[in-house]
Amino acid sequence: MGYKVPIGISNKHLHLSEQDLAALFGEGYKLTSYKPLVQPGQYAAHEQVDVIGPKGSFKNMRVIGPTRPQTQVEFSLTDARVLGIDPPVRESGKLEGSPGVKLVGPKGEVELKSGVIVALRHIHLSPEQAKEAGVQDKDLVDVKTYGKRPLIFEDVLIRSGEPHFREFHIDTDEANAAGIANNDEAEIIRKKN
Amino acid sequence: MGYKVPIGISNKHLHLSEQDLAALFGEGYKLTSYKPLVQPGQYAAHEQVDVIGPKGSFKNMRVIGPTRPQTQVEFSLTDARVLGIDPPVRESGKLEGSPGVKLVGPKGEVELKSGVIVALRHIHLSPEQAKEAGVQDKDLVDVKTYGKRPLIFEDVLIRSGEPHFREFHIDTDEANAAGIANNDEAEIIRKKN
Repeated sequence: MGYKVPIGISNKHLHLSEQDLAALFGEGYKLTSYKPLVQPGQYAAHEQVDVIGPKGSFKNMRVIGPTRPQTQVEFSLTDARVLGIDPPVRESGKLEGSPGVKLVGPKGEVELKSGVIVALRHIHLSPEQAKEAGVQDKDLVDVKTYGKRPLIFEDVLIRSGEPHFREFHIDTDEANAAGIANNDEAEIIRKKN
Repeated sequence: MGYKVPIGISNKHLHLSEQDLAALFGEGYKLTSYKPLVQPGQYAAHEQVDVIGPKGSFKNMRVIGPTRPQTQVEFSLTDARVLGIDPPVRESGKLEGSPGVKLVGPKGEVELKSGVIVALRHIHLSPEQAKEAGVQDKDLVDVKTYGKRPLIFEDVLIRSGEPHFREFHIDTDEANAAGIANNDEAEIIRKKN
């Protein structure tokens, strides 16, 4: 324990399936990288879409590439309230029973039936980093932050494996509650049974 | 320790001085109670004002009564970003060096020079409740919450004295980060030295 992890704050964003990418940007369209992310192979794309909920909307929400098997839209609970939807707090990819939202791109629209979640906070670690930290994939740990408003995040999920690299992912509500900024340091202080 | 405290979530709101109340609502105007709050003598007023920052604005922000010696405007960090200001995280009443904002009421406007803060989270306790909890005014304690996203809030300030009553005050960012609702239970788990 005592293992240090840089914090990565996720603003609202979405991952697109090939099918929804084609519907929004046109047949055969390919995402282009605007900025690589810490997680290997992932990038913030140039592409953006508008999202429309029952009560409100956001313009120009960033697409994260590459495409995925399912479209997944990630908001903070504050964002969700603006849109008028009530998404569950979920691990990435677990979309069963989640609400949908309308996506609007330059070439078309997609009315999602589901796919909107609030991301469950988690730590990415490479297999080597997990060994150094004394944890394994799917472990739960408590994580301490040292911002203006110190917090201990309990039951944080470890995600470890080849494509992962050291980063503690939280959303903007969590970052604001802790008074921390991107790349501030968090510390794994204990492992749960 | 192990003392239980109900959670009260503060949305953005403001307290007005008599002078600013008169400037916004007219000379001799008196606030009227819309709903009493948990803290004895405090109430959400019918009165609302618009606030305008350099980047954004909010309509109909709730005034909390009664009036106070100084006008104090409380936002979450998320709200502050919408307005384009960077207020400090502060205890109520400690306004030195804080930014201002423009207030617009039905009868006039006030350009505040300072007075905008993000409220430092705190627990109100009556003297008897503080004795039961084993804490005193100005103590710092760690507080555990049991929402969808369990958190331990560190260094939470105790405010105790005659006009206080048991309540853990946090803002909407903190509530969203913890996945908790008004009146959910928090627990004081340890006292700091």
